[in-house]
Amino acid sequence: MKLNRGRAITSMPGPSVIPDRVLAAMHMSMPNIYAGDMVDVSLSLFKDLPAIARTGGHAFIAISNGHGAWEMALTNTLSRGDKVLVLESGRFAVGWGEQARMLGCEPEILHAPKRAAVDPNDLEMRLKADTSHEIKAVLVVQVDTASGVWNDIAALRQAMNAARHPALLMVDCIASLGCVEYLMDDWEVDVTVGGSQKGLMVPPGLGLVWAGAKAMAAHKTANMRSPYWDWTARLSEQAHYLRYCGTSPVQHIYAMRTALDMIAEEGLEAIWARHAIFADAVHAAVAAWSTPEGLNFNIIDPAQRSNSTTTILSGSIDGARLHRICEEDAGLTLGAGLGDLASSSFRIGHMGHLNPHMILGTLGTVEAALLAMDAPIGAPGVTEAAKVIAKELAA
Amino acid sequence: MKLNRGRAITSMPGPSVIPDRVLAAMHMSMPNIYAGDMVDVSLSLFKDLPAIARTGGHAFIAISNGHGAWEMALTNTLSRGDKVLVLESGRFAVGWGEQARMLGCEPEILHAPKRAAVDPNDLEMRLKADTSHEIKAVLVVQVDTASGVWNDIAALRQAMNAARHPALLMVDCIASLGCVEYLMDDWEVDVTVGGSQKGLMVPPGLGLVWAGAKAMAAHKTANMRSPYWDWTARLSEQAHYLRYCGTSPVQHIYAMRTALDMIAEEGLEAIWARHAIFADAVHAAVAAWSTPEGLNFNIIDPAQRSNSTTTILSGSIDGARLHRICEEDAGLTLGAGLGDLASSSFRIGHMGHLNPHMILGTLGTVEAALLAMDAPIGAPGVTEAAKVIAKELAA
Amino acid sequence: MKLNRGRAITSMPGPSVIPDRVLAAMHMSMPNIYAGDMVDVSLSLFKDLPAIARTGGHAFIAISNGHGAWEMALTNTLSRGDKVLVLESGRFAVGWGEQARMLGCEPEILHAPKRAAVDPNDLEMRLKADTSHEIKAVLVVQVDTASGVWNDIAALRQAMNAARHPALLMVDCIASLGCVEYLMDDWEVDVTVGGSQKGLMVPPGLGLVWAGAKAMAAHKTANMRSPYWDWTARLSEQAHYLRYCGTSPVQHIYAMRTALDMIAEEGLEAIWARHAIFADAVHAAVAAWSTPEGLNFNIIDPAQRSNSTTTILSGSIDGARLHRICEEDAGLTLGAGLGDLASSSFRIGHMGHLNPHMILGTLGTVEAALLAMDAPIGAPGVTEAAKVIAKELAA
Amino acid sequence: MKLNRGRAITSMPGPSVIPDRVLAAMHMSMPNIYAGDMVDVSLSLFKDLPAIARTGGHAFIAISNGHGAWEMALTNTLSRGDKVLVLESGRFAVGWGEQARMLGCEPEILHAPKRAAVDPNDLEMRLKADTSHEIKAVLVVQVDTASGVWNDIAALRQAMNAARHPALLMVDCIASLGCVEYLMDDWEVDVTVGGSQKGLMVPPGLGLVWAGAKAMAAHKTANMRSPYWDWTARLSEQAHYLRYCGTSPVQHIYAMRTALDMIAEEGLEAIWARHAIFADAVHAAVAAWSTPEGLNFNIIDPAQRSNSTTTILSGSIDGARLHRICEEDAGLTLGAGLGDLASSSFRIGHMGHLNPHMILGTLGTVEAALLAMDAPIGAPGVTEAAKVIAKELAA
Repeated sequence: MKLNRGRAITSMPGPSVIPDRVLAAMHMSMPNIYAGDMVDVSLSLFKDLPAIARTGGHAFIAISNGHGAWEMALTNTLSRGDKVLVLESGRFAVGWGEQARMLGCEPEILHAPKRAAVDPNDLEMRLKADTSHEIKAVLVVQVDTASGVWNDIAALRQAMNAARHPALLMVDCIASLGCVEYLMDDWEVDVTVGGSQKGLMVPPGLGLVWAGAKAMAAHKTANMRSPYWDWTARLSEQAHYLRYCGTSPVQHIYAMRTALDMIAEEGLEAIWARHAIFADAVHAAVAAWSTPEGLNFNIIDPAQRSNSTTTILSGSIDGARLHRICEEDAGLTLGAGLGDLASSSFRIGHMGHLNPHMILGTLGTVEAALLAMDAPIGAPGVTEAAKVIAKELAA
Repeated sequence: MKLNRGRAITSMPGPSVIPDRVLAAMHMSMPNIYAGDMVDVSLSLFKDLPAIARTGGHAFIAISNGHGAWEMALTNTLSRGDKVLVLESGRFAVGWGEQARMLGCEPEILHAPKRAAVDPNDLEMRLKADTSHEIKAVLVVQVDTASGVWNDIAALRQAMNAARHPALLMVDCIASLGCVEYLMDDWEVDVTVGGSQKGLMVPPGLGLVWAGAKAMAAHKTANMRSPYWDWTARLSEQAHYLRYCGTSPVQHIYAMRTALDMIAEEGLEAIWARHAIFADAVHAAVAAWSTPEGLNFNIIDPAQRSNSTTTILSGSIDGARLHRICEEDAGLTLGAGLGDLASSSFRIGHMGHLNPHMILGTLGTVEAALLAMDAPIGAPGVTEAAKVIAKELAA
Repeated sequence: MKLNRGRAITSMPGPSVIPDRVLAAMHMSMPNIYAGDMVDVSLSLFKDLPAIARTGGHAFIAISNGHGAWEMALTNTLSRGDKVLVLESGRFAVGWGEQARMLGCEPEILHAPKRAAVDPNDLEMRLKADTSHEIKAVLVVQVDTASGVWNDIAALRQAMNAARHPALLMVDCIASLGCVEYLMDDWEVDVTVGGSQKGLMVPPGLGLVWAGAKAMAAHKTANMRSPYWDWTARLSEQAHYLRYCGTSPVQHIYAMRTALDMIAEEGLEAIWARHAIFADAVHAAVAAWSTPEGLNFNIIDPAQRSNSTTTILSGSIDGARLHRICEEDAGLTLGAGLGDLASSSFRIGHMGHLNPHMILGTLGTVEAALLAMDAPIGAPGVTEAAKVIAKELAA
Repeated sequence: MKLNRGRAITSMPGPSVIPDRVLAAMHMSMPNIYAGDMVDVSLSLFKDLPAIARTGGHAFIAISNGHGAWEMALTNTLSRGDKVLVLESGRFAVGWGEQARMLGCEPEILHAPKRAAVDPNDLEMRLKADTSHEIKAVLVVQVDTASGVWNDIAALRQAMNAARHPALLMVDCIASLGCVEYLMDDWEVDVTVGGSQKGLMVPPGLGLVWAGAKAMAAHKTANMRSPYWDWTARLSEQAHYLRYCGTSPVQHIYAMRTALDMIAEEGLEAIWARHAIFADAVHAAVAAWSTPEGLNFNIIDPAQRSNSTTTILSGSIDGARLHRICEEDAGLTLGAGLGDLASSSFRIGHMGHLNPHMILGTLGTVEAALLAMDAPIGAPGVTEAAKVIAKELAA
C-alpha cells in the first residue's frame, strides 16, 4: 500500500534538505544588482566564507556546481603537462583527475586499500619517490560521496611534509564542508573545493573554492586559466560583477547569506558535533541491521566512515527494491549506489539541516522497508539509533 | 545537548503539518475578488466540500476557527430556551454545550464512562425518558482532541432512532474529518462541524459547517440567528461575497482548493485507511512503552481510540519535561495535555499530511526523549511501529 | 490586443496589494500554538495594535472579516431594543445598521447630503431632539468604500458633545485605518472597527475592534453578547487561545506582525502623508479627465474625498468596458461600482503598500484604456499626477 | 520626501522582473535528482529550448551566467590561434572578444558607425578581404545592453553569404531572446548564446547555448574544450547529470520549466509583438522628453533601437541624481549607464514579464523624477506612451 503522502524527504547525500528559511530567502523580487543591499550581502559572503573552511585565504564563488569548482581549482593553479597525484578512495577524486587530464595535465592514481581511506604512508612513499618534484598537486577528497569514506587530511598533509614535497594539496570538501571538522590553514591545505548543496544547505548552483597563499602564488604562472574561472579578474575591485565574471547569482546570494547566518547561529563546532552524533546514530542502526549475507558497511574501519554520509553494501538484499519501496511507498528518497557500487549499495546522507526526528524517521522507514521485503536483518536498528540520540539529549 | 536544528515539526493534534503545496497556494498576489478566478475557485469549494462529509446537504464556510463553526451551528438551528443534550467524552462537547448556554440554551450533560466513549445505551435511555421531546439537539464529538476518544456516531444515531427521538444530531468532527470515516447522510447526522486546520491540512482560519435537510428546516424557526453566521444570507445567490458575509478569505480559499485537490488525488477512503495504519503504528509504540506505573493509553478500549490523535497518560513520568526535551532539544512539538488531563497526559497527533518517515520520526524522538529521561518503558516502541508499517508496505 | 502579461495588479479599494514580506511571513510551517514564539508574536499584536488607532484602549482580533468585526462591536456594547443612529454617507454604515437590526436593535438613518459627507450640524440637531437619550449608539464610517467619502470624525464628535448626548460613537475605519489620520482617543471615539486587508496590508481574515473605557462599561450590561465575539472571555489571561475564542490564526498572526513592523518602520504620520500625496495625484488625474458628460468625482467637495479610495462617476462612458479593458487586456483590476453606483461608477483604491510607480502605472493604464475606448476626456491625467508626485520628490 | 514604499520594481535591462509563478516554482523541497520528476522536467527543457531560438539544433544549459555561456560557445568551437571578427556596436561583443583573446584566439574588431548598428556592408567588405579565410568566427550581439542597439542578424548573414565566407556566425542574444524576433535556422546562425535572467524571466544562474550543425562539426576539432563546458560530454545519454557536468541546478530547472510554460501560453510571436508595442511606448515617451541639450536617444536611427532596452543620453541632466531619486525616493531601479556611457546615460529595460501598468508606471516615475529635478524636458512623455498603448488596447 502506498503511504507516500506527507512531506516527501530526501536522505540522499546531497543535495540535502534545504531549510525553509533558505528557500524563503530566494523567494524575492529582483533588486538592483549594481549597488545597494545585494552588493552588500554579496560582499559579506566573501568576507564570511573563509571562516567556513577555517582559512585566512581567499574564497571564490562560481556560478556552477562542484564540477565547475573543480575546474576553477585546476585551471587557476596548474599548467598543461603538470603531473597530479590523485588519491583514489572512491569515485570523486578520480573524476577530478579525469578533468585534469582533459585540461592537459597528467594524472597518476594512488589507490587506497579496498573499502578504506587513503593510507598516508602510501602517499609519503610515493612523494619521496618523486625526487624531481614532477608532481605539482595532490588531489584528494575529504569525504567520498560514493564510498562513504573519510580521509584524514591532517595525516595526509603530515605525509607530504614528511616527504618534504612541494606539491599543492588540493582537497575536495564538497560532501563534508559544514558537516565534518575541516581546518584548511592548520592542515596547510592549499586549495579547498566546496559546493552549495550539501552541508551548506543551499540549492545547487554555487561552486566554492578557497585558495591559500601558495595556491595564489602558483596561480601567477598557471597557463590553463580561462576568463570565466580566473581568480585574478575575480579579485579585481573595479566592479562588483567581476567577482562572478558577469551577472551575479542574485537568489543564491541571499540563500547563501541565510545559510551562513544559520551556521553562525549554531556555531561550526556545534555543527560538527551534531553531525558526529547523527552519524553515530545511523551507524548504530546499520550495525544492528548488518548480517554476513545482508547489509554491511562499505567502509570497514569505523574510524574511516564519514560523519556526513554512509554507504551500505546491500549484499543479498535487493537494494533497488529497497530504494523503490522507500521512495514510492513511503516518500523517502535514499541515495542510490554510485559507480562500481551502483548495483551493490545504497546510501544514507546525514548532512546539513537535520534533527533527531529526521534521522530517526529515515532509519525507521528503512527498517520498515527492510521488514516489508523480508530482508534478513540482524536486529532492530532504529531503536539503537534512538539510544545514541537519547544519550546526547540527556547530556 | 541541543539537536533541534533541521526542520522543526509539530505532532500536535492540530493545527497539523500544512503541506508545502498549500502554503505555496497562499503565497499569491491579490486577485479580483468580485469576479474571475477567485470566485470560480470559491464556488468550487462549496461544490466539493459536501462530499468530504459524505452529504448531499449544504456546506458553509465561515471565516473563523472551530469555535466560530460551533456558534454558526447552534445559532442557525436552535432558539433561546432550547434544551440540548451534550454527550461528554472529553472536553470539547462540554465546551460546545457551554457556548449553547451562553447563547441562551439549556445544556444537559450525559457523561460517558471514565476514559471511554459515549455509551449509545445511555443515550437511548435518556432520550426515551424525554417523552415530551424537550431536547432539541444532541451535541457530540466524533473524536475528542483532549481525551483521544472516538465516538461511534452510527451507533449513537441508532440509539436516537431506537428512542424515536426527533432531536437534531449535531456532530463536531473538527479533529476527525479527513482522517476518520464519516458518513453524514448514511448516519443521518443533521449538522456537522469542522475546521480547516487538522485533517484538512489548511492553516487555521476557516470554520466549516454542513447542514442536512432537517437542520435547514430547523433553521427557519431558530431565533438565535445573527447576521455574521446566518445561513439564509449565505445561501443567497445575489452576490458572491454574501457566502462569507463580507470580504472573502482569499488566501484560505486557494489553500482549501489545494487541500481538496490533494484529498481527491489520494481518495478519501485511502486517506481513512492510511490514518488507520498510522494510528496502529502509534498505538503499537505506545503499547510497547506502557508500564503499570509509566505511560498508558488514556482510552482503555482499543476500539474507542481515535485514528487521528492519541492521548497518553504519563503516570510517574514527567510529561512536561518530555515535552520540553522533544521541543527544545529535538525540534519536535508534541501536544500537551488539555483540561483535567493537562498535567497528567501528553498527546501525539497523527492527522493529515503524514507519511511513515514523519510518524516514525516522531515515535523515535519520543522514545529517545524517554530514554534520555531514564523513564521506565516496557519495550522499544518505534521498532513495533516500524513493523506495523512494514506490513502495509509489503501489502 | 491583449497586453495583460507581467505582474497583474489590483487597484481595488481593498483587499489591497499584499507586500511580499507579508506573504513570505505566512509561508511558514506550523509552530507550537500553545507556547513559544507564536504566542509571543500574538501577544505583541495586542500590545501594538492600540497605537494604530491612537488609543489607550483594548484591541480585539477576531478571526473574521470586517462584517464579523461589526458584529463584535455591536454585540459587545448594545442590547436588544436599543436605538442606534446610523449616519449614512454611502453604503457601509447602512449595512452595519442592518446588522444591528437583525441582532435586535432599532436603527434610524440620518442621511448625508447627496454626494457628500455627513453634516455634523444634522447630527447635532438630531441628537438634541433625542432628549430622552433613546439613541444608544451612533454608527458612522470614516471612509465609505462605495462612495469614496471621508467623514470628519472629530467634527462629528464635537456635534455629539455640543448636543451633550451620551450615545456611544462607533466608527468603521475598515477602509481608512493605516491610510488616513485617525485619533481614537483624541476624538473620544468609543468603538473602532477595522479589517486586516486594506491599509493594514494583510490578507483578509482578521476583524479588528478597538474599545475605549465607555464601551467597556457598556459591555457589562450588553445583552447580545455571544461566545465567539465576547470581549470578557477574550480579555481573560487564563489561556492564550481565549483571545481568539479557540485556535489562533497562526499564519495571519505572523502576517500582521510583519505589517505592523513595516508600519512602524515608516511611521504612521509618514504613512498618512504618503496617502495624502497619492490621493492628490489620483485626484489631479481624475480632475484632468473630467468633462461634464464624461467622468466626474462622486464626492463633490474635494475636502470630503478620501485619501484611500476614489469613486468616479462614469457618466456617458461605459464603465464596465473600461473595467474589462483594464483587467483583461492590461492586467489591472479596478474597483467596480457598488450598490446604487454599481452601473454608474468605478473606483480606484490608493491604500496601503503603494509607491509612485504603482500609482502612476494605474493612472496611466486607466488613461490608455479611456483613450482606447475613444472616451471623452478633458485632458491627459497621468501627467498631472506625475506633477503632483514630482513636487513631493523634490521636497 | 521618500515615497519608496510599495513593491519596489526594477526596470534595469536585466535581470528583469521574475514572475511570481517562477519564484514559486523554485520554492520547493529537494527532490530525487537521479530519477523521477526532476529528470523528466529537465529533459523537457532540452526538448523545448531549441524552439525558443527557432532552431532544430542542440540546446545546452550551463550552470553559469551569460559570460559562462560565452566561454562555452568559444571553447567548444574554436582553437587557439583562431582569428575571430568581433562586430562592435556597444560593449558586449567586445567583451566576448576579450574572452576569446584570453582563451588564445586573436580577435579583430570591426567598429559600427557611432551610435549605430553594425553596417552589413562593412562586414561584407572585411570578409571579402579575408581571402584566405583566416577568420574562423564572427561574434556579434543581437542587442547590446549598453548601447541599446539592435543589429540586423539576417542582414549580417546575407553579408557573410555575399562574401562567400565560411566563418561561423555566433550571436549573443542574452539581452534579446524572448523579446525580439530571432530565427536562428532561417538566418543560418551557427551558435546562439543566451541567459536565463532577461527575456526568459528566470533568476540569473543559467547560461544557454544553441548550436547548429556547422558548429557541431567545428566542435570536433576545437582544441580549447574543457570538461565543464564540453558539449560532447553533455550530449552523452549515459547519465542525466552529464548534461550539467555534475549536480543539476534543481531550483532553476523548475524555474525555467515554468518560464517556458508561460512563454508557450502567450506564444513567442505574441511576445515579440508585445515587446514591440512596449518599446514604441517607451520610445514615444523618450522622444517627447528629448531636447537638444537634455535627454536624447543614444541610438540615432529609430530602426536600430532595441525592443528590449533603451539607452538614453542624459545630456545636461544629472543622470546619477535621476537614478537616485527614482530608486531611493520612488522605489524604481533604472539601469545605470555602462562603460563609456557610464556617466552620460541611463537605461530603461523593457524586457520580459511586463504589462502596461509596469511600463507606464516606470515612465511616469521617470517623468516625475525629471520634473522634480527641474530638468528640461520637451513635453510630457508618459501621456504619449499611454497613447501608444491605447492604440493597441483598442485593436
